[in-house]
Amino acid sequence: MKHLNVGLIGGGFMAKAHSLAYATMPMFFWPAPAIPVRKAVADVNLELAIDAKNRLGYEKAYGDWRELVNDPEIDVIDIVTPNHVHAEMAIAAAKAGKHILCEKPLARTAKEAKMMLDAVQAAGVVHMVAFNYRRTPAVELAKKFIQEGRIGKILSFRGTYLQDWSADPASPLSWRFKKDVAGSGALGDIAAHVIDMARYLVGEFESVNALVKTWIPERPIQQSGVDKLGTVKSSDDTPKGVVDVDDEVNFMIHFESGAIGSIESTRNAHGRNNYITFEIHGEKGSIFFNYERRDELQVCFADDPVDAKGFRTIYTGPAHPYGEGLWPIPALGIGYSETKIVECYDFMKAIVDGNGVSPDFNDGYQIARICDAVLESGTRQEWVKISWIE
Amino acid sequence: MKHLNVGLIGGGFMAKAHSLAYATMPMFFWPAPAIPVRKAVADVNLELAIDAKNRLGYEKAYGDWRELVNDPEIDVIDIVTPNHVHAEMAIAAAKAGKHILCEKPLARTAKEAKMMLDAVQAAGVVHMVAFNYRRTPAVELAKKFIQEGRIGKILSFRGTYLQDWSADPASPLSWRFKKDVAGSGALGDIAAHVIDMARYLVGEFESVNALVKTWIPERPIQQSGVDKLGTVKSSDDTPKGVVDVDDEVNFMIHFESGAIGSIESTRNAHGRNNYITFEIHGEKGSIFFNYERRDELQVCFADDPVDAKGFRTIYTGPAHPYGEGLWPIPALGIGYSETKIVECYDFMKAIVDGNGVSPDFNDGYQIARICDAVLESGTRQEWVKISWIE
Amino acid sequence: MKHLNVGLIGGGFMAKAHSLAYATMPMFFWPAPAIPVRKAVADVNLELAIDAKNRLGYEKAYGDWRELVNDPEIDVIDIVTPNHVHAEMAIAAAKAGKHILCEKPLARTAKEAKMMLDAVQAAGVVHMVAFNYRRTPAVELAKKFIQEGRIGKILSFRGTYLQDWSADPASPLSWRFKKDVAGSGALGDIAAHVIDMARYLVGEFESVNALVKTWIPERPIQQSGVDKLGTVKSSDDTPKGVVDVDDEVNFMIHFESGAIGSIESTRNAHGRNNYITFEIHGEKGSIFFNYERRDELQVCFADDPVDAKGFRTIYTGPAHPYGEGLWPIPALGIGYSETKIVECYDFMKAIVDGNGVSPDFNDGYQIARICDAVLESGTRQEWVKISWIE
Amino acid sequence: MKHLNVGLIGGGFMAKAHSLAYATMPMFFWPAPAIPVRKAVADVNLELAIDAKNRLGYEKAYGDWRELVNDPEIDVIDIVTPNHVHAEMAIAAAKAGKHILCEKPLARTAKEAKMMLDAVQAAGVVHMVAFNYRRTPAVELAKKFIQEGRIGKILSFRGTYLQDWSADPASPLSWRFKKDVAGSGALGDIAAHVIDMARYLVGEFESVNALVKTWIPERPIQQSGVDKLGTVKSSDDTPKGVVDVDDEVNFMIHFESGAIGSIESTRNAHGRNNYITFEIHGEKGSIFFNYERRDELQVCFADDPVDAKGFRTIYTGPAHPYGEGLWPIPALGIGYSETKIVECYDFMKAIVDGNGVSPDFNDGYQIARICDAVLESGTRQEWVKISWIE
Repeated sequence: MKHLNVGLIGGGFMAKAHSLAYATMPMFFWPAPAIPVRKAVADVNLELAIDAKNRLGYEKAYGDWRELVNDPEIDVIDIVTPNHVHAEMAIAAAKAGKHILCEKPLARTAKEAKMMLDAVQAAGVVHMVAFNYRRTPAVELAKKFIQEGRIGKILSFRGTYLQDWSADPASPLSWRFKKDVAGSGALGDIAAHVIDMARYLVGEFESVNALVKTWIPERPIQQSGVDKLGTVKSSDDTPKGVVDVDDEVNFMIHFESGAIGSIESTRNAHGRNNYITFEIHGEKGSIFFNYERRDELQVCFADDPVDAKGFRTIYTGPAHPYGEGLWPIPALGIGYSETKIVECYDFMKAIVDGNGVSPDFNDGYQIARICDAVLESGTRQEWVKISWIE
Repeated sequence: MKHLNVGLIGGGFMAKAHSLAYATMPMFFWPAPAIPVRKAVADVNLELAIDAKNRLGYEKAYGDWRELVNDPEIDVIDIVTPNHVHAEMAIAAAKAGKHILCEKPLARTAKEAKMMLDAVQAAGVVHMVAFNYRRTPAVELAKKFIQEGRIGKILSFRGTYLQDWSADPASPLSWRFKKDVAGSGALGDIAAHVIDMARYLVGEFESVNALVKTWIPERPIQQSGVDKLGTVKSSDDTPKGVVDVDDEVNFMIHFESGAIGSIESTRNAHGRNNYITFEIHGEKGSIFFNYERRDELQVCFADDPVDAKGFRTIYTGPAHPYGEGLWPIPALGIGYSETKIVECYDFMKAIVDGNGVSPDFNDGYQIARICDAVLESGTRQEWVKISWIE
Repeated sequence: MKHLNVGLIGGGFMAKAHSLAYATMPMFFWPAPAIPVRKAVADVNLELAIDAKNRLGYEKAYGDWRELVNDPEIDVIDIVTPNHVHAEMAIAAAKAGKHILCEKPLARTAKEAKMMLDAVQAAGVVHMVAFNYRRTPAVELAKKFIQEGRIGKILSFRGTYLQDWSADPASPLSWRFKKDVAGSGALGDIAAHVIDMARYLVGEFESVNALVKTWIPERPIQQSGVDKLGTVKSSDDTPKGVVDVDDEVNFMIHFESGAIGSIESTRNAHGRNNYITFEIHGEKGSIFFNYERRDELQVCFADDPVDAKGFRTIYTGPAHPYGEGLWPIPALGIGYSETKIVECYDFMKAIVDGNGVSPDFNDGYQIARICDAVLESGTRQEWVKISWIE
Repeated sequence: MKHLNVGLIGGGFMAKAHSLAYATMPMFFWPAPAIPVRKAVADVNLELAIDAKNRLGYEKAYGDWRELVNDPEIDVIDIVTPNHVHAEMAIAAAKAGKHILCEKPLARTAKEAKMMLDAVQAAGVVHMVAFNYRRTPAVELAKKFIQEGRIGKILSFRGTYLQDWSADPASPLSWRFKKDVAGSGALGDIAAHVIDMARYLVGEFESVNALVKTWIPERPIQQSGVDKLGTVKSSDDTPKGVVDVDDEVNFMIHFESGAIGSIESTRNAHGRNNYITFEIHGEKGSIFFNYERRDELQVCFADDPVDAKGFRTIYTGPAHPYGEGLWPIPALGIGYSETKIVECYDFMKAIVDGNGVSPDFNDGYQIARICDAVLESGTRQEWVKISWIE
């Protein structure tokens, strides 16, 4: 069985999630398309890299990601860093002939994403962006129902991604609030996942029209580099810095198909933790999904008997997408891990089969164009066509 | 105790709901501000009027609403007809010095609504528009929490009103699909309720930006005049007529306060029956309401202990708005009736006290302006300020 | 159209609910089987009776219920008093040849219920017990699915009726805590409704095995006679009296059919307001109902496609039991009122048609036998056959 | 950092779950108490063992579990086999001085469990039973609230464990339906988890009173040894064998504290997949948990303001038990994996610290006594004291 040596860049919570997938994917999907080997990890200095190596079970540690990228033992580069270095790393990895899995959003801007896309296409390597939420089995079941025509032609899509960790003004000014590092705020950080699902389930965006808001214009400067997603609070006399990204975006969509939609996303919604939802109305049925209750998909079929029509709550299991590999009965429990295990499986399969995988860097680029269009629309306060964004 | 003689125009399902309220309001709120007396009812002909009289418990029947309006015994005119005759009836009633309760939407257009408002103001009568859903105790509880500052400054509002009775193309072309009768489609019929709640809970709209869609452009011509909300289907060879109103609206909002919002409304959402929802994010908390589960309000307070923060599901009862008058324990059951009983109570109280009531014809007019702006925005595909609408 | 003159005994919250039904039933079900006329009301003294007359819209008031029962104008006696006087009143009414609607539980004991049953049978009058919750359209839909065989042979039933108004030890010692007035505590007050549903949906009980608990053995003696269901608290120095009924019952059931079941009921469950639920497992499907969300029935059909199997949430409306008469679309709102309106309709119909109605005094008697068996089992700590109770 | 060499006996779905935990626990809890090393795996023959070794990432494979148990390199024996061999394996492992993690139920009978307990106590090794569901963070949060007195003295507990995979009579006669292998049916297989939670959260059982049912008395004999939990159906002419275990148990509980309770468990409940729920009523609050929505705990506090009292839906995250190690925000996703990762962490910690761990073999034995009492009660149809079971 083929082994693929993975080089991971970054050591935070995403590094944990990806490493878990490398360590366990073959336990779920056997025979595995390939056995991922946790070969080496790089972090911003050697000390952190060695810590990550020990903690996450890698063989080697690098204090400089360039050395990792050029390590001839490495087959795959996995980028789990803040957004501003994705492009440089991915382009270098492509030049070194490595297959690449890159965390989302692919880049800070469409322009940057396009350079990355050009690089991987020129290099002929396999590339993927880690929009893992669409790999929740319930989302894949929605895709299946749509593809089979079971809810008919789609009329509308309404999505949300709501969190609350930045609602507190005492939450520190981490990199996620800085445009030069993150590119955008809630938009690229979380709304991008819903954009990915909307494209996947409904189709291409024709244009968007957005409200973009920064509710908390400055925040206490963060003391450490660790990204705690708001769990560490600052004292009152901490110096403050400017937030130059969006806290909230709310936008309408014209899809190319004629369907319409809307997406709302904020990290300031008290009580919403990881509230990724979508509702889709089709001519023959409706679908509702809420990631906070991710074992479930709700679907209503128009042709049900009139006395028994209503949303069904389907718990995904062996009879549903990826069900053969995951757990033997529904509701045993799909967690964050499982979305990453499935992602790893599809990525390994794509490398071995050579048939491509979705979402790839082109998807990441298209999503970046939509994000750029959303920001542009927010500034101009008018509809912006995606085709206007390079 | 004062008695007020009510003259009802119309005999459909709304006539039932209002008559129930007149018959039973004092049973709930005692001593009642006044005892409503079901004195007379008018319908499009005398036969129908007599049927309504018997069925709904009125004393007299009129085949011509003008006679009812000019009956000197009548103190209050209650208009529960299709939209296109609201203005003529209300203006005549005002001239006759009657207090007026008018079903929503107040009128087909802002212009028409303004004439009605002018008439009632000139006549000095008490006037009210029947946006009953805001009188659900759970909605009033949301209002109370907001007024008391318990969720802080409001950042955003997201509302829906989804039904599915028109999703079937075989649903007949009732008056609700004709612009000359209804004024608009889902917008005035149902979205107007959510607009009312948004104004009530968040404040005035500054501008809107809308998507407006007619999914089913023609429908079988209806054989009878009865409004069955889609439950009677047509045969295949029924001649068809044009639908010239919206099936769906989806719009964004700038509130004058700086808050933002969105509202989605359609009558083509399979599986959604009377899905009136709103979610409000404030600086200190969040609120969620779903009319399909109308005994409940969900609220999250930011200052809850960190290990016990989450949305509370509060069932409204004696400790909540209107609770003294309604049922003795929560979840005994708030139905459509109760919203109308409370409305009747507030209307009677306003007549006796002379202090005005909300929503009145001015609210109805402001909502009509917003509806006009939504349609205008849908046509122009750009932001439309409410102040642009006369 | 036939008119039936109603004489109501009692003036509390149930008097309100029943009077609402008399005033409005024909608005919903037209042509009505008969028009109920609110003719006279009796209360414990004339002052209270006159207040009830005015508040609830009756024509005459009596300070002595015996006068009402013997009023020759009266066709129907409706008993909405505390439990200890049901028997005396119903037997007198039967002797006077009146049809009788009696609030639940029918009596304090099976023996008392049997006397009432004997009296109405001897008199040949129509009799009904007001177990209104089974008339929720969603419960009637469950009955329909079961009768049509859509969930197959029933294996098990699990019911609850949980409230929290007596959880506070400062709640006063109302008549509901006194055995000589109430007969039993949570058992007769609320669990009896679930017993009624279990008999209605599953069939006769063969035996029960119970836990019976009184958590709060004494309570402050109530100052006024008004039944506020715990909303009025006492001061600390109020003298206390003994609670001699159950706060909670929890029992298992052998049904005659071979099915098994359990019912749990308490008025001390913080956060549960009127939590009447049942779950039924059949060989071909399952049903779940929760009265707190009473517009809905959840049902799962075993023969659904394997990828689309799950509980459906069905909102009852025109396509469901009583739907023709109630509201024109689902989720407009079923409240407590509607359950009583439907009950009134069926009762009037039974009087006119002479075909009997369920639940009648025999049902009330059977339920009283089950309640007696539950208490007996709680004392003996063993299975008690219903047939052992006279 | 200490390394502990694990020897795993068994290769099915539980082997996967445990191996995932060994491979990834240190990624979550760092520094880990010890690094578990997947050293060797045994299965019923060498071929299967080699397959498991490759699939699950072990170093060595044994076709005979006795060789594994006596491998001097092994520190820990992990038993994930069918129930009938737990005792023999665990006793052998104890004699070999290995620490032991054994899947639930610990044994087929209390007698067997007692022998295992005696063996591990005599050997002085660390022992644990894999009742993993209590390690769901939301269940641990319930425990914390109870320990802190936040819901007051507990009055009652109602638990369920419902599945539907055996509802189909065509589901084959796997070992789970055979008394000599499984010991009992739904009781030991799934209800035991709820018994574990009830003991953990409420305290020791004093006595039980049970209904025990076998709904489907015979099933098609299974062709292969693989345990597919009902997903593989048989053809009509497959020979059938007798089911000699329970399909459903339903029992009441006297706790030693004076609290009461009930547990219902079946694998024949269409639409329920892994429906582990409990509701606890205390003098100062209530708790509800549903594993199918396991990121959430619902809790109601009696001392909340009267206008804001209701069940809170708390999503567990960093502020809750095990939150430091798991995911950085709530609702990112707790799955089956996470319950096993936490279990592995606590087990490794117990080995290193020497302070014992819960649930251990004594807990497993106490649960086995309760299971024996439930079966005994079902046969005798009366209350059975746990103290009567040796």
